[in-house]
Parts: sequence; C-alpha cells; structure tokens
Amino acid sequence: MQLYRYVRGLIETGTVCPGERLPSIRLLAQHLGIGKNTVESAYQQLLAEGYVASKERGGYVVQPLDELDAVSEPAIAAPVFAVGNNGDRLACAYDFQYGDVAFHRFPLDAWKRCMAGALASSDPQVLGYGEQLGHEGLRAEIASLALQSRGVNCHPDQILICAGTQQAVSLLCQLLPLRGAAVGFEEPGYNGVRTVLRNHGCALSPIALEPDGIRLDLLQASGVKTVYVTPSHQFPLGMVLPIGKRIQLLQWADENGAHIIEDDYDSEFRYNSKPIPSLKALDKRERVIYLGTLSKSFLPAARLSYMILPPELMRSMHGELQNYNQSVSPIIQQAVWLFMKNGDYGRHIRKMRRIYQAKHKALISAVARHMGERVRVVGDGSGLHVILDVKNKSSEWLIERGARFGCKTYSPLKHWHDPLQCPESYVMLGFGGLSEEQIEHGVKLLSEAWFSD
Amino acid sequence: MQLYRYVRGLIETGTVCPGERLPSIRLLAQHLGIGKNTVESAYQQLLAEGYVASKERGGYVVQPLDELDAVSEPAIAAPVFAVGNNGDRLACAYDFQYGDVAFHRFPLDAWKRCMAGALASSDPQVLGYGEQLGHEGLRAEIASLALQSRGVNCHPDQILICAGTQQAVSLLCQLLPLRGAAVGFEEPGYNGVRTVLRNHGCALSPIALEPDGIRLDLLQASGVKTVYVTPSHQFPLGMVLPIGKRIQLLQWADENGAHIIEDDYDSEFRYNSKPIPSLKALDKRERVIYLGTLSKSFLPAARLSYMILPPELMRSMHGELQNYNQSVSPIIQQAVWLFMKNGDYGRHIRKMRRIYQAKHKALISAVARHMGERVRVVGDGSGLHVILDVKNKSSEWLIERGARFGCKTYSPLKHWHDPLQCPESYVMLGFGGLSEEQIEHGVKLLSEAWFSD
Repeated sequence: MQLYRYVRGLIETGTVCPGERLPSIRLLAQHLGIGKNTVESAYQQLLAEGYVASKERGGYVVQPLDELDAVSEPAIAAPVFAVGNNGDRLACAYDFQYGDVAFHRFPLDAWKRCMAGALASSDPQVLGYGEQLGHEGLRAEIASLALQSRGVNCHPDQILICAGTQQAVSLLCQLLPLRGAAVGFEEPGYNGVRTVLRNHGCALSPIALEPDGIRLDLLQASGVKTVYVTPSHQFPLGMVLPIGKRIQLLQWADENGAHIIEDDYDSEFRYNSKPIPSLKALDKRERVIYLGTLSKSFLPAARLSYMILPPELMRSMHGELQNYNQSVSPIIQQAVWLFMKNGDYGRHIRKMRRIYQAKHKALISAVARHMGERVRVVGDGSGLHVILDVKNKSSEWLIERGARFGCKTYSPLKHWHDPLQCPESYVMLGFGGLSEEQIEHGVKLLSEAWFSD
Repeated sequence: MQLYRYVRGLIETGTVCPGERLPSIRLLAQHLGIGKNTVESAYQQLLAEGYVASKERGGYVVQPLDELDAVSEPAIAAPVFAVGNNGDRLACAYDFQYGDVAFHRFPLDAWKRCMAGALASSDPQVLGYGEQLGHEGLRAEIASLALQSRGVNCHPDQILICAGTQQAVSLLCQLLPLRGAAVGFEEPGYNGVRTVLRNHGCALSPIALEPDGIRLDLLQASGVKTVYVTPSHQFPLGMVLPIGKRIQLLQWADENGAHIIEDDYDSEFRYNSKPIPSLKALDKRERVIYLGTLSKSFLPAARLSYMILPPELMRSMHGELQNYNQSVSPIIQQAVWLFMKNGDYGRHIRKMRRIYQAKHKALISAVARHMGERVRVVGDGSGLHVILDVKNKSSEWLIERGARFGCKTYSPLKHWHDPLQCPESYVMLGFGGLSEEQIEHGVKLLSEAWFSD
C-alpha cells in the first residue's frame, strides 16, 4: 500500500510524466528489497485505477492524468472464429435479404429531432432503468394505434415493451406456465420464435398449413394448449387466415382454455384491400396474446417490440415482472413516443406503405415479365418478402447461380421444423432494402442465371 | 370493395372533409340496399388504413390526409391494475433507492454528441438489426477496458452485448446446457439473476456465505456444476472474496468441469485500495463466464451489458446465436462506442469514482456520528449501497418509521432464497442518487426516526 501511494504521488505531482515506463517489477523489488508480489500488487492497483497502462512484454507506462488512454492496444487473446470471407455481401450487387428496410426513405431528420428531444427531457426516468412495463406514454400511443389500425381495444397496462419479438417470447416462457409446455407451431413457421421456444424447453408440435393457413383439424388433434400463429401474413408462406378460420381458431382456444400467440409482425404493409382484422380484435374471450414490432414498420435499430396481454395474464405475470428490469433503453422509448405523438409515425407508415407497395408491384411484375410460367409466386400481396417456387430447380442451385450473377437470394429452409418438408424449389426474396430499379435489374439477372442455359 | 374505393375516393378528392362523420353503418346499408356486414367491412378497411378514425359510440370520422391523428382518444379498455398511490416516492425527500445513479453529474453534453454522432453514421448497420454479437468496435473497446481495468485478456469475439444482466443470464440458460441445471447461488444473492435462473427451470442450490464470502465446502458438497457469484463486491452483503478463496474457487471449477458465472456489476467503484483482480483475470483454465454492465458505471438507460465467454463456450453457442437477433439498439451501441473511443468513458469513470467515494464517505461518517454503536455497517467500502444492521429493530418498522420522517429505505429480504435467513434488523441504503448533503440530512432524519423515542 505504501509503495502504491508513493508511486501514485509521483504521478499526481508530475514527478513521473505520462509516457514514462515504470521500472520493471523484478528491478524495483530488488532495489527496495521487497517481494516481487508486493510490487506487482501495487502496480496492479495503479493499473486498475488507470494511472498506468500495461504494455506488451509486461511494462507499465504512466498515463496522462486527465485522459485515460482509451485508444489502447487491442487485447492479445486469439480470435474465437476463423476470419470469414466478408466479401460475400459486397460481391452481390442485389441482395434480396429479408429484414432489410428502405433506410434511404427513413425520416432521419424527424427521428434525430425526437432523439434530441428525448435526451433533453427533464424526466429523470429517461436516464434510469425506466418503468418495468415500458414508457407509459409510449404504451398509451401503442394502445391507440392498435385500436386505430388493428381494431385492438386494450388498456396501456396490458402492454409490455420488449427488446424484439424474441425477447417477448422468452419473457412469456419465463413468466407464464409456458416453459416446457407443448406449443403448436405453424409448419413452416418463423424460425426466430421457434428457436426461442425450443430453447425454453417447449415441446413444439408442428401443425401443417393448407392454402388458407393453419389446419385447424390438426391443431385440435394435437392437444396443445398454446399455439403460435401469423394470421395476417403467414411467415414465410404469406397466406392470410380468412375470417371464418379466425373465428374457429378463437373458438378452439375458448373451448380448450388455450392461448393463441398472434405475431402481427408486418400487418402495416398490405397492398390489396382485403380487410384483415387482427385475431386480437375478434378476441372477446381474451385468449389472444398479441405481438407487435417496430422492426418492419419503423426501424430495426429501435429493437423495440411489444406484446398486448389479456388482463388476466398481465395480472398473473405482474408480481414476477417486478423482478425484471425493462430491457429497452428509456431514451429510445422516449424518442419513439415523441415520434408517434407528433404524427411522424403515422406519416411514416403511410409513406412506407406506398413505397413498399410500389416495390412489391415492381417485383411481381418483373418476375412475370422475365420468368413467366417458369416460376410461381407463393403468398399473398403483402409484407416485405415473397417466396418463388422455381419449378424443377433446387434452392441450393438457384442461390448459387443467382450469386454468380450478382444476386443474393435465400433459402427458407430454416423455417421448417422438418427440413424434408420444405419444397426444394423454394427461394425467398426480401425486397424492402432494394429500389424498384434494383428489383427490376435483380430479377432480370436472376432470370438469366436460372434459365439462360 | 366498390364501396371502400368509392368512399376512399371521396376522402382523397376532398369531397368529404376531415372531421366529417361517415353515415352510420345501418343507415348506409339501408340506403344502398346492401348488407350491414358489407358496409362494416368497407369501413374497417378505411379505418385500418387510417382514412377514418373510430369514435366512441361507433361513429367513423374522416382523418386529415397528411396527418394521421396520432393524438387520438385513449383506448377505452379498463385498467388492469388498481391505480396505486403514486405519492410514495414523491412524499419521501430522501430516497435511498439502490440503482439510482448521480444523474446530475452525468456528462450529458458529451453523451448527446455521441448519440448525434451515432445517428450521423454512414454505417447502414446503425439503422438495422446490428451484428448478432454486438457492435464490433464496441466489443473491441470493452475487451480493451476489461484488460486495463480488470486484467481480463479476451478477444472481442468472446464478447456478447446484452440488454442488461438479466437478458445475459437468460441467453446463457437458452444457449448453454444450463436450462433446468442445478446452479449454486450465493445466499443471500442478487434476486434479479436468481429470478431469471428460476424461471428457466434451474434448480437453485443456495450456498451460504461466511464473512469472507461464499462457503467453498458447501459449494463442493452441493454437487452443482455451475455457480453464480459476485466476488468483487458480494451482492447484497458487500464482502470481497479474498485472493486465496478465488484461487480455490477456480480449482473447484477446474476439478469438477464446472463453470463460474462472475457478476462484476460495480467493480469500478472501489474506494479503498486493496487490489481486487477479477476472477476472470485469474482464470487460466477458461472456467469463468464474466458479466459486466454499464448500468452502474455509466447509465442505466443504456440498458447495455456484456458477457465474456470462454472461447470454447462461445464456439458452442455460436451456431444457435445465428438464430437470435441482437437486442440492444445499434444506435445506442454506436454511441457508447464513440463515448468510449474518445476517452469520455474513462474520464467519466474516474470522476464518478471520486464522487461516489465522497458520497460513501459521507454516508459512513453520518451513520457513525448520528447512530454510533446502535448500528453496524455491513459490507466493504465499495459499490453504491450499504446494509445497516440496526440492532434489535425490525426492518419493517425501520422502513415504516423512516418513511414517516421523509426517508425511503429498503428491505434486502428479496435477495434471500430463504427469507427466514434474512436478519430482521437489516435495511438497505443505496446512495448513488443522493448528494452528500442529502445523505447527511437523510441519515440524521433516519437516526431521529429510529432512535428518538
């Protein structure tokens, strides 16, 4: 401790200057006639407090007092993963990645103003952990939007703000008696949620689809008490669950005391005019847990989703929720709240609906013109992706050939519980991140790649 | 569809003006000689697309075309919870809440610059989902800080950015064979993590503490293969695990093929000068999973924590991690990266260490002056809280009495697995959010509250 204080004093008084090396441990121990461990302890403490930095080959260098040298040498530990060839994405001029959104049409200035507004807020909660359920004003805005655009009538207290749909599902598993339970799951269905359920020990019961969505006879026969569905735009196949089946599904839940997890991930983007009320809007018996997200409608980087719970479930979770910190930054929540409150969000959705509609139309039209009868477009006219069924070709070959022509396409395989059930000839094209021109060129190139020989 | 298009046309051309009510469904159906359902479908579609808003008592009002009326009526659903008396916190002039940090000393301007810098970034990832492990530059900064301040030598690939310690622990449960496993847990120990482990089905094995930390004989006897510890500042009792026990703990892990989860939640704030290397720094056999957080050292509102995994565990998790989206906003990650890179973070930590040291000293000194022998301070001189053992009084009475005198204090009871083991006379005082003057006055008031009669 004496030695530590002595050296610290030398640094603080400027007797030893920034950049100077401390004597080696061995040398100083010898010089002072004390143990090497003692010297090392003193040095470690100086290091821990930022007075010195450790250099390669074990030396210690005095740091400037008012500026910790944050641009320090990189850690010398070995990398965990072999460095991959990151050229993949760059090499492809046209990346039909699902999940990309039209960033260049994003109202960045309005969003910057809202972020600045959030940071200027006098609410101390904005710098703290935030409310457990999420920002109260934001929950009120979401309740209001859910009513307006999805017909969902809920109180803000029924809403829990989550850091993405996967975290929402994880919380359901942790807080409801869902862990280890049997859960019905669309086959195919969204892999991101299936993964989370599986990793919480849920016994997944894949329920096959028919052309108008999940097979209710198989759901009934499965005996599950919980089912996860994407009724407004089945992921990944894109069909819409018709109103008759929605009512039957709700009846099933009511008769079996079951719960339905409705993932309404991209219902903002429907391009035809068929009215599609959400399941939750029809849910008079409070059997539906509604999941919504801002990742498609607004910005993936908000990492903000929400769930709307039946009052009874919210009450049963509430005690345990007191032990959970909110996981979305209150700064982000406050900014999104401002963005919704001042009307920017509504404007943005309506603008993006037009933009994505045009992109969707460009894609469908380009596929029809360039590929004609050789492919079939799977799914309804909505959302931010389509699946192409390219008859008599394999997905692996299609993706590989496409990449050689500069177009990155994707296999939907991972969304099948049983990969053998995935038609070989399916490829998935997201179009949210590409312009209409890129879509046109990309599809033309894909057509050449797939059909030129 | 015809009706929907017709009405939409009327709105778009301005023939029907914003604010006007649409005719009632019944009336219009009668007038047109069509079914009420047909009219309702058309109205629902207009509602879903934002052309009209629904009003109480069922009417539909035309909305302004360029501004969705985001300030709409509140949802009419009933509240889930009885409205509580929110006056609690306001009524107490001195809130010794653990978790509060010194917001008024926070370098808000520097942070605003970093947030603005993040939003100005040309990296498209900043608006997207972000990298699965977290921002690469941020992970490099964290690796560098972990080496400098905690002696942890790791590669950035070993780091996973998480939305708080609870999410980190949840991911461990989901991705390692930890779900349902027996986990040793300090008794008492941090309730936030215990809750998450329990809700993932872990069988918790409470391991009693002795004055220098966890009892290794009991740990050995428990047969667990995983243990969660807070060696640098036991939560909530505050002792430091001495170096000898650290080495024994690591030996135990090595001999049993076990893993240690080290939660190093507030090691930035040590006020005496005993060198306390992290367990991870001593972990030559890669048995330690290190958890760090920015909630104490920086800002709870960042909702940003991280874990450092042994390379082997990271490799085993990596495949499944591909199915998980990163849950911290890339905007926040980019801003924190800038804040670290330009040295603001290092400056902030050193400033806060002085500030919290002064607060800690003020608290200890006030307790000694006003309460003397009547209380015992439990725990080492570090962190942002202390426990007071107020002899022969009950925590319930102490908290109630304190509140009557304007001081909010807390029971540490929830941090015991077995509540009966929690000494009745313990109260917990966080001091991060109070000024030195407030601490002095608060402690004086508490002394009057507790000892005046």
